Amino acid sequence: MMIKNNYSSLIHQLEQAFCVLPGVGPKSASRMAYHLLLHARKEAGVLSNTLAKALENIGHCQFCQTLTEHELCHLCQSNTREKKTLCVVANPHDIDTIEQSQMFHGRYFVLKGLLSPIDGIGPNDVGFDKLLAIVEKNTIDEVILALSPTVEGEATIHYIKQKLKDKVKCLTRLASGVPVGGELAYVSANTIGQALYARAPLEVD
Amino acid sequence: MMIKNNYSSLIHQLEQAFCVLPGVGPKSASRMAYHLLLHARKEAGVLSNTLAKALENIGHCQFCQTLTEHELCHLCQSNTREKKTLCVVANPHDIDTIEQSQMFHGRYFVLKGLLSPIDGIGPNDVGFDKLLAIVEKNTIDEVILALSPTVEGEATIHYIKQKLKDKVKCLTRLASGVPVGGELAYVSANTIGQALYARAPLEVD
Repeated sequence: MMIKNNYSSLIHQLEQAFCVLPGVGPKSASRMAYHLLLHARKEAGVLSNTLAKALENIGHCQFCQTLTEHELCHLCQSNTREKKTLCVVANPHDIDTIEQSQMFHGRYFVLKGLLSPIDGIGPNDVGFDKLLAIVEKNTIDEVILALSPTVEGEATIHYIKQKLKDKVKCLTRLASGVPVGGELAYVSANTIGQALYARAPLEVD
Repeated sequence: MMIKNNYSSLIHQLEQAFCVLPGVGPKSASRMAYHLLLHARKEAGVLSNTLAKALENIGHCQFCQTLTEHELCHLCQSNTREKKTLCVVANPHDIDTIEQSQMFHGRYFVLKGLLSPIDGIGPNDVGFDKLLAIVEKNTIDEVILALSPTVEGEATIHYIKQKLKDKVKCLTRLASGVPVGGELAYVSANTIGQALYARAPLEVD
């Protein structure tokens, strides 16, 4: 970051500290620092404290590895979740999205990202060993791979398929196709191709 | 903000705390919270600490009102700045931009924003009384109004002009015109009009 402000080294430090946020470059970081100091000191205090508290208290769920402030997250603690279905995601955030759909009632397992041999990220880096242990120690009927249909996602799906195919009855993945509410004009040819390939029969009354 | 994540109330609190940042909505706030907790815990600790330290130590310069961790900011402390020229800005950040131009060697005064009668923001809300006191107590030959040529900026320039015209020899404002390096095609008609009105004679060797 360009040194553009030598009149308060602490402001400069704060600008640099904000650069760690995803999607925040030097200009936005600077704007954030000034905004908080000039117009939102109380809220900035809350941000600083909440961040410190979150860093101290939030760890990983011992079962599904999502972020939680408890030993087990509330979904793994719940008695109403179906125990025989496991949904594998690559990010704790994806759990929120799937929960919002209200279409899944089993438990989750959160990988630490996707396999990426080019970047040297292998199965144990993403926590595949823990997933394997869960599948071996529990009675799991179906493992749903809810991973992005990207190069890394496909590599991860392929790897998990090879390793788990003899250990669970049913291995599935999310359907690919045209996004609901999406316009065909904005959908890639690959997606159209996949949607054509997996076309569904119309139900005629 | 929609309650979308009830499995860790602390993560939810952190997401809400990030919403205070300018330009950050619920989606970005959520991305920031997860990113820090998953991938940048050390940097997040630095951010939390630096923010707390900045809030505790950074106040306003007793002369120019900019943000500083000292009684007087480094520009007001400096012996090499010309004392008879005062540049009025509406934001501490604008000082950085003007300093980068290396075209100004006097001192600054930072208003707390611009006048906005519609929002009930009057002269004392932006600290005009402090500017008046400086002009009355010091020998100031020129006051440069470096304020944005917006409705609020023009209102502020007009007000300050009326109040200071009998107190300083020379009151000036920044020139308006086509931005340096800018394409005419992207410049508004108002700007072109102003640039035409203030057209400069070509110097012929």
